[in-house]
Amino acid sequence: MSLSAFTEKYKNVLEEELKKAVECLSAPAPLKDSMLYSLSAGGKRIRPLLLFGTMYAFGKDPIKGVLPSAAIEMIHTYSLIHDDLPSMDDDDLRRGMPTNHKVYGEATAILAGDALLTYSFQLLAQMDIKEHTPENIIKTIQLLAKAAGAEGMVGGQVADIEGENKELNQTQLEYIHVHKTGKLLKVSIEIGALLSGASTKQLQLLREYAYHLGLAFQIRDDILDLEGEEDVIGKPVGSDTNNHKSTYPKILTMAGAKKELEMHIRKAKELLTQVNIESTILEEITDLIGNRNN
Amino acid sequence: MSLSAFTEKYKNVLEEELKKAVECLSAPAPLKDSMLYSLSAGGKRIRPLLLFGTMYAFGKDPIKGVLPSAAIEMIHTYSLIHDDLPSMDDDDLRRGMPTNHKVYGEATAILAGDALLTYSFQLLAQMDIKEHTPENIIKTIQLLAKAAGAEGMVGGQVADIEGENKELNQTQLEYIHVHKTGKLLKVSIEIGALLSGASTKQLQLLREYAYHLGLAFQIRDDILDLEGEEDVIGKPVGSDTNNHKSTYPKILTMAGAKKELEMHIRKAKELLTQVNIESTILEEITDLIGNRNN
Repeated sequence: MSLSAFTEKYKNVLEEELKKAVECLSAPAPLKDSMLYSLSAGGKRIRPLLLFGTMYAFGKDPIKGVLPSAAIEMIHTYSLIHDDLPSMDDDDLRRGMPTNHKVYGEATAILAGDALLTYSFQLLAQMDIKEHTPENIIKTIQLLAKAAGAEGMVGGQVADIEGENKELNQTQLEYIHVHKTGKLLKVSIEIGALLSGASTKQLQLLREYAYHLGLAFQIRDDILDLEGEEDVIGKPVGSDTNNHKSTYPKILTMAGAKKELEMHIRKAKELLTQVNIESTILEEITDLIGNRNN
Repeated sequence: MSLSAFTEKYKNVLEEELKKAVECLSAPAPLKDSMLYSLSAGGKRIRPLLLFGTMYAFGKDPIKGVLPSAAIEMIHTYSLIHDDLPSMDDDDLRRGMPTNHKVYGEATAILAGDALLTYSFQLLAQMDIKEHTPENIIKTIQLLAKAAGAEGMVGGQVADIEGENKELNQTQLEYIHVHKTGKLLKVSIEIGALLSGASTKQLQLLREYAYHLGLAFQIRDDILDLEGEEDVIGKPVGSDTNNHKSTYPKILTMAGAKKELEMHIRKAKELLTQVNIESTILEEITDLIGNRNN
């Protein structure tokens, strides 16, 4: 299957699941509207695609991964809603649309984020016990909670805030990105592998792959922030600079950042060849992450 | 065992668990400090005590409930941090201390809340599989996520915000409180019962008991807001009125609210006698909730 056919097929499955999951909630309308607004803002769905792609690579039906994919996308979405708040990045635009708090107000935006975060664990706990075994479902919950919480994404966000207006070195910058964006990308692959019955050796290789993929993702983000087109990246060019954030081009120069990006993509793809799976879809996603325009 | 001996024993176990759980995290110091600050602000720990008390009533060792108790207290604590934010209730004091965002700033307060919410599910997923069975752990996660999320506590908080500056009737007020405070109190009892092997009949009676207990808790809260002493309740007297919130005394008169409180406590205790468990501790907690001064 080509990546574009794969993406279309499983993105559709995911979009349906996300929509259905929120619409069926018995909850106040402004909360559901606010949750749906950000969930259906049409992101790239990279994390779900990595989870689906990993299951596909192991010969497992990706459809069986729809609940954990939706759960991870909910966590990603909540993190964007909270990151955009006035007390955080204070962003008015996200993917070219007004941010959640601009439409629904700060209080509802915070609560929609809280509801999405909570709901993601409910979805995991609703996974089919017969298909995945109770033990693997519990393991999935452990992995996602760790990746999303204080030792993962939230910790990275705090480190990011702490690092504002400071001159960070590459190690400090890497700490932020490995946690803030890397952990959630990595856990998408880990959960896909776990639910496909990967061996310890395969899991280890895929974790190393995910490490390089995550850094490549972030370096590309930093490059796009300076070289992207506003209507394609969906936010003003140079907003990292304006927010006094350290970036790879700033530390390594633009040429250095591009070289670093290339190195991570190459290493990621090398590792992938060692896992002994049908990895063409994952390879193509890796290239896409290295070359994406938004 | 007397309630005071019971409370002292199991509160200590809980405090230790909460402290240990956060201290062992590998995360940025300001995040851990902010999480610990609110976690150790010394609340009444009503929810954990209800969980412990329910297990005790079934003859099960309450210590086995320490992880779900800590998880529920983390969710309660995160909800207080987020409720106190400037864009929500904008409170400067909580239990007589500066609120989290007053000490750590809004961004860190929001993220500490997010981290506590996420961590609570990690703790549940770390429960002992041999002691509780994987199926009951998954069921526990389902129950807590549902009680805390859009269909529970978060939904109640949104309804509360929507109801500000409006004249609510008793049904609308009840919807808010059943969700905003009731669901988390109820799930503490439900999880305690589930982990003790309660029958369907017993679970149903305990759910009805929890319904009345939750409303009694909130009515007492509204009464204290008007009749309590500032240094005992830890916040200014009359703050609900100043925040333009509907309350039971406002809708029913103070005498009417007290009669309603008495009715819920009486019904709660009647239901308790029908469960066929050793319920003295739960009865005493019920009386305490009806008569508490803070």
